[in-house]
Amino acid sequence: MPNEKPLILITNDDGITAPGIRTLIEVMNELGDVCVVAPNSPQSGMGHAITVNDTLYCDEVVIDKEAKQKEYSCSGTPADCVKLAVNEILKRKPDLCVSGINHGSNSSINVIYSGTMSAAVEAGTHEIPSIGFSLLDYSLNADFEPVKGYVKAIAQQALQHGMPKGVVLNVNFPKLKEEEIKGIKVCRQANAHWIENFDKRTNPLGRDYYWLSGEFVNKDKGEDTDEWALHNGYVSVVPVQFDLTAHHAIKDINNWDL
Amino acid sequence: MPNEKPLILITNDDGITAPGIRTLIEVMNELGDVCVVAPNSPQSGMGHAITVNDTLYCDEVVIDKEAKQKEYSCSGTPADCVKLAVNEILKRKPDLCVSGINHGSNSSINVIYSGTMSAAVEAGTHEIPSIGFSLLDYSLNADFEPVKGYVKAIAQQALQHGMPKGVVLNVNFPKLKEEEIKGIKVCRQANAHWIENFDKRTNPLGRDYYWLSGEFVNKDKGEDTDEWALHNGYVSVVPVQFDLTAHHAIKDINNWDL
Repeated sequence: MPNEKPLILITNDDGITAPGIRTLIEVMNELGDVCVVAPNSPQSGMGHAITVNDTLYCDEVVIDKEAKQKEYSCSGTPADCVKLAVNEILKRKPDLCVSGINHGSNSSINVIYSGTMSAAVEAGTHEIPSIGFSLLDYSLNADFEPVKGYVKAIAQQALQHGMPKGVVLNVNFPKLKEEEIKGIKVCRQANAHWIENFDKRTNPLGRDYYWLSGEFVNKDKGEDTDEWALHNGYVSVVPVQFDLTAHHAIKDINNWDL
Repeated sequence: MPNEKPLILITNDDGITAPGIRTLIEVMNELGDVCVVAPNSPQSGMGHAITVNDTLYCDEVVIDKEAKQKEYSCSGTPADCVKLAVNEILKRKPDLCVSGINHGSNSSINVIYSGTMSAAVEAGTHEIPSIGFSLLDYSLNADFEPVKGYVKAIAQQALQHGMPKGVVLNVNFPKLKEEEIKGIKVCRQANAHWIENFDKRTNPLGRDYYWLSGEFVNKDKGEDTDEWALHNGYVSVVPVQFDLTAHHAIKDINNWDL
């Protein structure tokens, strides 16, 4: 089938109507046949949650009447969306899965909390080449125009080369004008973390509750990290694996008295 | 402070009243001063979800009147519980965080969906030695007696040795009698995955919905894997890292035309 276009699955964690995913759909329509299966509401911070004790709704919707793509709005998490797409909705395994473009960073340790990246990882476990895209701008009105060329270029390369086995890509974009972006760096995840700061309040009934907030702390000064790249005007691309084994630590633990 | 006991934080994803966490509390009270901060309801499959757009309740509760430990019941996810414990509830950083004992397996790829393991990983990001424990029995009436000795031994070793930097432990127990368990194997995560099988139904109003189910498929025949250990009567201990960088793939991606 020499003329068959690539089949591209699109999802996100900000919900199917978020500007970030609409930009991603626009760009991917230039590269292949697009199918969208995305959450019907924001799912930020959902990590790799899946719906195991509840039902899932997944309905075809028309968001853009001129659109070429089919779109499905799902009551579940980003990982649920990928599972439903692969097993129920798509007639064949997609050639590429793209997730995002997330409104906000998923660099460094944020990858473990990210619904955007969990969708990409879920597709990776199904051996689908897969990329999560995020822009360092939490605003609902974030400007995705400057990054469209990079999204297209990276997706084209993934379609051409496939993905190393057991690997998906975590792509983050600095919040800059197109002409200010210096290029792309392939990086490692910076060794950074959050220091939480809970805001304790009392509700009208007198019961205490908390809002989670926090400060992101990066003590990793390596110039090969995603944080360095983003702070220096580059797009960061981190290859992410879902074999979480710390192979180097097996010998240490074998020295324990077990 | 030579006589100060270790401070041990306990959480889980099955909820604060689940038999698995009650067993863990019983064992840890033999090793140190215990504080429990756990979800007020089951959170299975929550992965590394955190509560970012909603409030959190966290109230001191008395579940066992004879108990030595303080206990807090939290409206959030397992990862939320650890963040709240470390930042709001505990007066000092705990010497150990243990999560579980989960009712059901968290071996192999299940680690990425596991609320139990996400709590352990969250503690690891705070540089707290941390272990997630799971028993291969989903039943609410699972028998945790046979594994108590192993839980204690592994926790004691973690208190004595600390943990390799950036590493937490994923411990799974086979569903066997105590005398049938052959010992402990330190393993890598098996390269296995789920093939989903959605059960499509129609609700009384005529709208379609789905139940997620699936089949776990392990084609990894390695005798150094957690799946091999568990199927052969051993307790599996996998060192898990939260630097997800696929370092070996950086060179591959650098060969792309980016």
